[in-house]
Amino acid sequence: MSLTLYERQAKDGWRPSPFCWRTRFTLAHKGLTPDVVAIGFTEAERIAFSGQGKVPVLVDGERVVWDSWSIAGYLEDTYPDQSSLFGGNGGRELARMLGHWVDATLQPALAGVLAPALYDILDAEDQVYYRRTREARWGMTFEEMRGKRDSYLAAISPAYEPLRLRLAEAPYICGEKPAYGDYLVFGVFQWARCTDPQDLIPAKDAELRAWRSRMLDLFGGLARSVPAFESAA
Amino acid sequence: MSLTLYERQAKDGWRPSPFCWRTRFTLAHKGLTPDVVAIGFTEAERIAFSGQGKVPVLVDGERVVWDSWSIAGYLEDTYPDQSSLFGGNGGRELARMLGHWVDATLQPALAGVLAPALYDILDAEDQVYYRRTREARWGMTFEEMRGKRDSYLAAISPAYEPLRLRLAEAPYICGEKPAYGDYLVFGVFQWARCTDPQDLIPAKDAELRAWRSRMLDLFGGLARSVPAFESAA
Repeated sequence: MSLTLYERQAKDGWRPSPFCWRTRFTLAHKGLTPDVVAIGFTEAERIAFSGQGKVPVLVDGERVVWDSWSIAGYLEDTYPDQSSLFGGNGGRELARMLGHWVDATLQPALAGVLAPALYDILDAEDQVYYRRTREARWGMTFEEMRGKRDSYLAAISPAYEPLRLRLAEAPYICGEKPAYGDYLVFGVFQWARCTDPQDLIPAKDAELRAWRSRMLDLFGGLARSVPAFESAA
Repeated sequence: MSLTLYERQAKDGWRPSPFCWRTRFTLAHKGLTPDVVAIGFTEAERIAFSGQGKVPVLVDGERVVWDSWSIAGYLEDTYPDQSSLFGGNGGRELARMLGHWVDATLQPALAGVLAPALYDILDAEDQVYYRRTREARWGMTFEEMRGKRDSYLAAISPAYEPLRLRLAEAPYICGEKPAYGDYLVFGVFQWARCTDPQDLIPAKDAELRAWRSRMLDLFGGLARSVPAFESAA
């Protein structure tokens, strides 16, 4: 069966979307290798067949699934013989809860820095669209956001605290081996290292950095296969 | 076998400890009814047999277990035939992660309000000890903390956001039925309703309040069996 993943592309080859990285790792966890189709911010019509305009979209034969969480559930149910993403139903429920924490707390903590930085890795056409939509969402210009960078940076650290506690006791969010909970969190840090030249994990957070390195090594260095800023190795 | 839970008591009958409530619900989930022994803040010597000074402490026959997380793991492993607390190993790992979020984000968000309020529900002897230790920890007097109450209150809402997202889609944190993840979170709100006269879940958070009501109804109204402020029903 053909397996195709539609994912967000910034400028040529740059893949910053945290949601698409969740899905990339989810597929790799299941031992699946999709054809990857890059979609720019202004190319929503290319995924109109999915009935909506957001990536990631997965096409598995005749089945179309969109939304990273729906894709994870679909893959867990459709490929049950491969390694489990969730480790049972309790893990599946709490992975959803963890995803809400990532969406509501962790990602927003970095977004003030990363939203304007992403502008710099877009092609000119996408820049126009991206600036218009994101500045409206934030209620200020990217220049104003860059002016507040230091205060955005200062507000990041508290959001890491649950990760610090977890990674002080286990090599992965999900315990001895990585699983979907790790991919949820890693997507955020891959978004960061593919978007901003500054490493948003400070040197003092050695355990968090070490976890990120382990995540970067997974699946043959999957997350290292795209352009990124070297500072966040 | 005799089963005894040592838990924190404030003034006569008042049981505010979020950690002890985790354990109360954990035991009830397993269908276990312990003898409950109340321990005041200045009575650490009564649990010295556990080798440390914090509650909850569980004594199951000859086995002594302390720390709410260790107790949960012990009960899951020792009573595997009763309803699972975690729903599999993946759920157990992510329950630990959720607990870190509760400890590092949710509880601290309410602590600025609740730490000085707890003083008012203590006996005179415990008040002396509690004020000395907590004021040292916070680096300010309870009176100074009460002066900052409005700013503490204003900072609570963002910490609820992952809970809002979860309870908009499921009746419990753990899905269709309550489990350990719910007890972790509920302990915080039981601490609040047993400590401060103001309901710390605002009326606009109707789904969060409805979840709390469901939790209060569990196990024959276990959490309603102790004194609390009526405002947070």
